[in-house]
Amino acid sequence: MLQLISIRSLRRASRVSVQQTLKANRYYSTRFGYTLSRCLVFSNFGQPDKVLKLHSYSIPPPYDDIINVKFIASPINPADINQIEGVYPEKPEFTLGLGTGEKSAVPGNEGLVQVISCGSKVDPSIRPGQWAIMSGPNFGTWRTYAQARKSNLIMLPNIEGVSPIQAATASVNPSTAYRMLKDFAELGAGDYFVQNAANSGVGRSAIQIGKEWGFKSINIVRDRPGIDELKEELRAMGGTEVITEAEARDRRYIAQITGGQPVKLALNCVGGESATNLTRILGHGGHLVTYGAMAKLPLSIPASALIFKNIHCHGFWISAWSKKNEVARYEMITDIFDWVRDGKFKDIPYETIQWSEDTELEKLMDPIRKGISEYSGRKGIFVMEETGNPS
Amino acid sequence: MLQLISIRSLRRASRVSVQQTLKANRYYSTRFGYTLSRCLVFSNFGQPDKVLKLHSYSIPPPYDDIINVKFIASPINPADINQIEGVYPEKPEFTLGLGTGEKSAVPGNEGLVQVISCGSKVDPSIRPGQWAIMSGPNFGTWRTYAQARKSNLIMLPNIEGVSPIQAATASVNPSTAYRMLKDFAELGAGDYFVQNAANSGVGRSAIQIGKEWGFKSINIVRDRPGIDELKEELRAMGGTEVITEAEARDRRYIAQITGGQPVKLALNCVGGESATNLTRILGHGGHLVTYGAMAKLPLSIPASALIFKNIHCHGFWISAWSKKNEVARYEMITDIFDWVRDGKFKDIPYETIQWSEDTELEKLMDPIRKGISEYSGRKGIFVMEETGNPS
Repeated sequence: MLQLISIRSLRRASRVSVQQTLKANRYYSTRFGYTLSRCLVFSNFGQPDKVLKLHSYSIPPPYDDIINVKFIASPINPADINQIEGVYPEKPEFTLGLGTGEKSAVPGNEGLVQVISCGSKVDPSIRPGQWAIMSGPNFGTWRTYAQARKSNLIMLPNIEGVSPIQAATASVNPSTAYRMLKDFAELGAGDYFVQNAANSGVGRSAIQIGKEWGFKSINIVRDRPGIDELKEELRAMGGTEVITEAEARDRRYIAQITGGQPVKLALNCVGGESATNLTRILGHGGHLVTYGAMAKLPLSIPASALIFKNIHCHGFWISAWSKKNEVARYEMITDIFDWVRDGKFKDIPYETIQWSEDTELEKLMDPIRKGISEYSGRKGIFVMEETGNPS
Repeated sequence: MLQLISIRSLRRASRVSVQQTLKANRYYSTRFGYTLSRCLVFSNFGQPDKVLKLHSYSIPPPYDDIINVKFIASPINPADINQIEGVYPEKPEFTLGLGTGEKSAVPGNEGLVQVISCGSKVDPSIRPGQWAIMSGPNFGTWRTYAQARKSNLIMLPNIEGVSPIQAATASVNPSTAYRMLKDFAELGAGDYFVQNAANSGVGRSAIQIGKEWGFKSINIVRDRPGIDELKEELRAMGGTEVITEAEARDRRYIAQITGGQPVKLALNCVGGESATNLTRILGHGGHLVTYGAMAKLPLSIPASALIFKNIHCHGFWISAWSKKNEVARYEMITDIFDWVRDGKFKDIPYETIQWSEDTELEKLMDPIRKGISEYSGRKGIFVMEETGNPS
């Protein structure tokens, strides 16, 4: 039996029984129970402007172990853009299964879905109305509906008090910050970490998670108009100190902040000279973890920092980590949702792009174009609407 | 009682009883049992040519826990030169105890000594005739005699079949190679490591220790006249493959060598682009260990190597390691001497500089000047002579 659910009931989904949320709502079904999915597709790697197209295809009712899902919200992350450009190591599978003339793939790696109907052999613990996020990259989340298997999804824990946006964005930015703070250096309460790009999604997450764990943070941002307001905002969020790249190069100023306490961990999203400076701020035996390359320059690491200061450099990639750590990932998402629920985790600045049945390509492209410079501020998030959908 | 020993009996010292080796030999004693030590000294950091002087001072008979030692051989390592220049993190103590007009220090960090006499409170296991190496940096090994305490010395294990040169040079180059091969990546028999500066003292040590442990090695050297002979020499020593920096940049050539087997460890003594290339040769999850900076350029590490290839970068400094690992160091020296004894460990090319009572500054300076470009070939080693000394 095909079961469908209205998006307006999303916020209630966690609180009320599945039964209650299942108001029949078939506007998006074509005849014979088929569902129309709208998606972005690309057939060749290249500039998003040049290679992305808008496409529609029909999804049949689910059978066997197939789960039909409706996308609720799909963020636009820098990695998604890199993937379209072909410069990201994870490549999607190009397929004719979408009904495109040439083999195509749907972009987007992060997303929140709601289960709308299940095939007869689907694990009975998975029920319509439940929320899930993608279990790994390459699913193709920039679309309105899809078919999935259990292995593609992480069914979400208690989502009461968690908004769709918060759930949709938990698996990349907060998760990256969480792992980097936990897995590379032994930080205890009162210990310092330092990060550049502190105003990014990961940066803001690290500030808040660090605060929750009792860590002190030195947060480096680029100088900009309105720098004082930004500093104040990040401090209010829990950043111990917020400084510019220029201030971060002043060793005495750093020593003044820390009182000479060694900085044990550095998170690097920039590279080049900014990364070199992080090695200067780090204390003896410290760890530098790289997760981005905004400056598009390799890290420049003095041999003396490695040999005499015993600095260790690592990289972190949430996709690779997630594939290998299913259980730990579930526990982490639970922690993040707990903080959200308790008001300890503020949303990253974002801009939603409503995506309805008749949304045109140009409107969808706008945030993707902006996404290229995402770190400067707001993250774009597609929110799939139920326009014209009586609930 | 002051006991003295002739250097000519050194090779016998391990085989015959201490009693037998103790031929009275007092030429270097001044009146009242004082011993004349000749040493290089410096009072300010700077170019060795400008700051080093030759100096003589008298050493009294040992009392309490003091041990009088005679230097047998003292290598000239690049770190010693850097220390004189003031660009090395380990600084020697400048003291008036040497009888110089201004506070001075004796350079040299590595050296082999023989115990010649012990104060009344010295641990009785320490006896004249025994060999020892320095337990840490900054002792000042470029001199002919000195006073030490037990804590300054590592009394050597079984030295039968080990030459003074081999014993004197065991604590820096072979030890550095040994630890880097053992402590950073889990290499098993048949696993690959790669190294640049493969012709250096550490490089040659790594080839031989790697062979002993069953590791395969890709050894990168600079192109030079006589490259074919050098390649043949390093291969004969146990290097699986010896290639130039240019050949190392050819990915297909590397894949051909390894048959696609991942390279788990890279040893970097160069920095700059050569280090970048090591990250390309390393397999997923590999470790890059830096112990030198011949190119005098920072390491240039692409963020993608850290994030997507999960490469880890570390440094290794034998001085720091040795301070913390006394027991492991003793075991390591024992291993190295075992290999030497079994003919499995060939000497690093060296040039001895005989240092007798009347050797002049100019002769001692010559290898120090060469030492600045030591990695290109032969290591200079002071060998303290017993000229004029009837045994």
